[in-house]
Amino acid sequence: MRRFVIGSARSLIERSRQNYQFQRPLLSSSYRLLSSTPAVDSPSSSSTMSPPVALNTINPKVIECEYAVRGEIVNLAQKLQEEINTKPDAHPFEEILYCNIGNPQSLGQHPITFFREVLALCDHPTILDKSETQGLFSADSIERAWKILDQIPGRATGAYSHSQGIKGLRDTIAAGIEARDGFPADPNDIFLTDGASPAVHMMMQLLIRSEKDGILCPIPQYPLYSASIALHGGTLVPYYLDEATGWGLEVSELKKQLETSRSMGITVRALVVINPGNPTGQVLAEENQKAIVEFCKQEGLVLLADEVYQENVYVPEKKFHSFKKVSRSMGYGEKDLSLVSFQSVSKGYYGECGKRGGYMEVTGFGADVREQIYKVASVNLCSNISGQILASLVMSPPKVGDESYESYGAERDGILSSLARRAKTLEDAFNKLEGVTCNKAEGAMYLFPRIDLPEKAIKAAEAEKKAPDAYYCQRLLTATGIVVVPGSGFGQVPGTWHFRCTILPQEEKIPAIVTRLTDFHKSFMDEFRG
Amino acid sequence: MRRFVIGSARSLIERSRQNYQFQRPLLSSSYRLLSSTPAVDSPSSSSTMSPPVALNTINPKVIECEYAVRGEIVNLAQKLQEEINTKPDAHPFEEILYCNIGNPQSLGQHPITFFREVLALCDHPTILDKSETQGLFSADSIERAWKILDQIPGRATGAYSHSQGIKGLRDTIAAGIEARDGFPADPNDIFLTDGASPAVHMMMQLLIRSEKDGILCPIPQYPLYSASIALHGGTLVPYYLDEATGWGLEVSELKKQLETSRSMGITVRALVVINPGNPTGQVLAEENQKAIVEFCKQEGLVLLADEVYQENVYVPEKKFHSFKKVSRSMGYGEKDLSLVSFQSVSKGYYGECGKRGGYMEVTGFGADVREQIYKVASVNLCSNISGQILASLVMSPPKVGDESYESYGAERDGILSSLARRAKTLEDAFNKLEGVTCNKAEGAMYLFPRIDLPEKAIKAAEAEKKAPDAYYCQRLLTATGIVVVPGSGFGQVPGTWHFRCTILPQEEKIPAIVTRLTDFHKSFMDEFRG
Repeated sequence: MRRFVIGSARSLIERSRQNYQFQRPLLSSSYRLLSSTPAVDSPSSSSTMSPPVALNTINPKVIECEYAVRGEIVNLAQKLQEEINTKPDAHPFEEILYCNIGNPQSLGQHPITFFREVLALCDHPTILDKSETQGLFSADSIERAWKILDQIPGRATGAYSHSQGIKGLRDTIAAGIEARDGFPADPNDIFLTDGASPAVHMMMQLLIRSEKDGILCPIPQYPLYSASIALHGGTLVPYYLDEATGWGLEVSELKKQLETSRSMGITVRALVVINPGNPTGQVLAEENQKAIVEFCKQEGLVLLADEVYQENVYVPEKKFHSFKKVSRSMGYGEKDLSLVSFQSVSKGYYGECGKRGGYMEVTGFGADVREQIYKVASVNLCSNISGQILASLVMSPPKVGDESYESYGAERDGILSSLARRAKTLEDAFNKLEGVTCNKAEGAMYLFPRIDLPEKAIKAAEAEKKAPDAYYCQRLLTATGIVVVPGSGFGQVPGTWHFRCTILPQEEKIPAIVTRLTDFHKSFMDEFRG
Repeated sequence: MRRFVIGSARSLIERSRQNYQFQRPLLSSSYRLLSSTPAVDSPSSSSTMSPPVALNTINPKVIECEYAVRGEIVNLAQKLQEEINTKPDAHPFEEILYCNIGNPQSLGQHPITFFREVLALCDHPTILDKSETQGLFSADSIERAWKILDQIPGRATGAYSHSQGIKGLRDTIAAGIEARDGFPADPNDIFLTDGASPAVHMMMQLLIRSEKDGILCPIPQYPLYSASIALHGGTLVPYYLDEATGWGLEVSELKKQLETSRSMGITVRALVVINPGNPTGQVLAEENQKAIVEFCKQEGLVLLADEVYQENVYVPEKKFHSFKKVSRSMGYGEKDLSLVSFQSVSKGYYGECGKRGGYMEVTGFGADVREQIYKVASVNLCSNISGQILASLVMSPPKVGDESYESYGAERDGILSSLARRAKTLEDAFNKLEGVTCNKAEGAMYLFPRIDLPEKAIKAAEAEKKAPDAYYCQRLLTATGIVVVPGSGFGQVPGTWHFRCTILPQEEKIPAIVTRLTDFHKSFMDEFRG
């Protein structure tokens, strides 16, 4: 006991200093929690009788947290889906089209063959030296599986790994980062996680001490950030992306919001940048990134770089640069900037969302803080090994000369070029709609069109106690089966209305989607036009 | 924006009522965080300048949290391992034996063939109808893979699933629970998670509002609970297991600790019971479980039942009963008791730790609270699909008549009977040591022997600023390469000393381990005997 009771007492004392003076007597006696003195007649015992679990007795941070990507609109979609399953002609559409979430394989995208070959062989290594296996699997997938198994102590793919992930796989990932950036990467800086989300939570948990700690987040943002900040009891400090300049990120805006929040007593700990942007799809220019790095260095902010869409760039004039590469190219090293880069196997051309693989590269933190990050990772033991293996594969795919190289390249390029075409087609379609303007999706998997809604539509929404964009999205869903997420779930300039639509439906379905969208929008506007 | 800024403002107001009166002005103006009014000359801005990230500026809850299973002793073991790798004769042993963690496959246990066949086929379904596959995989694994793929929308094993996990797999798991308990189970009560740990965190996050909320935990306990309570800012309310009666769980002790903590102003929200016990290995008697259920019902506590060792029972006189079965057999239903049962693919005879599969069955909560649990699950999208599939497999393994049934049964029984023999051998060996007493491991994967340490040894430990049991474990490691975890990492009656040792080293290694342990202990006692 001693160890954690002391710990717990220490923290109670800590917190009591901050705001629970009246508890002081409790603390000195918290050792007595262990003693055998009963306290049946204590006057306070009735008043502290445990209530049953109810909405008003659970953690308010949980109630506060919101995640629109799987919110109300998706619940309605699931309901409609069930109705269609039981009664195919229940609605004016045969299927629900989920454009609410970046989940490519749910819409028919096929996994990259080489990656799945290696995963299957690592799951069932006993077939590796069977003759039939040669006929079923590519030579380089067999070779890669052996290499990976040899990196795992005892070849035990069913064992907990090191808390940061299997060392050999982190070596491979670090090599992949070096090849991408042209600057060294240290495998000990890599923390493998079950997708990027747990990594984001870990950093929020580390940085947020109370609601007086703020995290600068883009508006619009991916709601994982608002949800995680709410769950950890911090304050989201918004900075606006400029829709007029293609969702530009202005450092002057960062400065202004930082100063404003500081003037309100908020201690800003970190800046979240999502590049390529989600939901906004912009790709930052290198000069812009340099200014952001400089800003974080000057202001002593941790730079949390969401780079999960690094493979998803669709326009020749833009290129992805990691913030680590940019900061190193400016001559900044460990001492200058605390930088965390998030990567995931869920995005890119691979879209392996269900595998829950990802990592964060943690640089510019002291050894003592690193130890704390390691400890928190250890409490959860390790991320899933298949996800770890896949993370190593996406950072070191087949190379020229490997048997799979050509087929792998064809699969990858086929997916990426098709995504580029789908993005353009949908962008053009949105821009043809009355009162709708849509920036180009330079990258990522989304379009975030702005809708200029008629007054009557806004009144109709208010009558139903809905945000106007939520009302539009609900009408779109019930009319067409297309699921998109209201802009209010991501944040937008008050008084403007948007929705996020993925570019992921299979290409052959896009024309029908465009027709359905166009017809719906026309009739919606006809209904509400002043 | 509106939505979460209102949310954030609401919560700030909420909290400010509790303890940040002075912040009131901030709150009414927190909308102005979004306005364009700069605040450069604000007097407070310099005082709130963000500090660089340092140990004294991170979340104190993170610092407070501890997890001994991968603590100091394991770091030392990894260091010794590296020394052996570079210089094989660096130490008086050739290998490090990790008896610190329940990680069977890391010590040579083989995965269950049928489970891995199905996982491999689901990872790479395109081989399912190739002729070579018939020669490599059992007929029922192929059949099961098809069945599972048909349960996944679009057969997309690379897609995010429903936030609670794939519905068809939850149906299978619910059926498995019904077959186990003889009482109905609802697939909508199942939340699939990446191992049991995230499920425990989810419940702690839901129940803990502040350090005034307490969670009753056994002492000794598995440190996931103390760590999770610390990370979520609650208070661990300990209850002692009675070593003298084979780690008995007395309801009188629960009552006493509940009343004592209430008298100190703690609101106890839940009771954690680990059955079979970790680190203590006892299996609760059904009558005992009934009394515990009655206690939770009377006191309005959520019963958090850690049942991950449900397959690990080694003595004929004891049998595992789930708390759900026990409460239903008492006639208690949804309205009577809030009960959460945790299960994992990491334990049992399968020991698939690296797959990070598991689930919690959540019963006796209102629809509104369930919605909040669903929302938190949604923020993390879903658990990994291979882990979800494996969770369904362990709850519905091959049946009589299936091609794999015999080989599967042989693998399962071979592992379980060997674990029983290893437990007995180690238990006997510990009990032969001077000043050591060790209760029987009726179940789970651990022994938790008590060491009566000589005064001189305790003094030597104090001289090194170590807990005496930590000192003993460190000496054991450096002398023999055997890694065990000090009792102080799990909690123990103050002044008593223990360590946790897994029963997992392969059977052929046990005699050597016993010899090494015995020789070390003798020399240790010789060194310090008064």
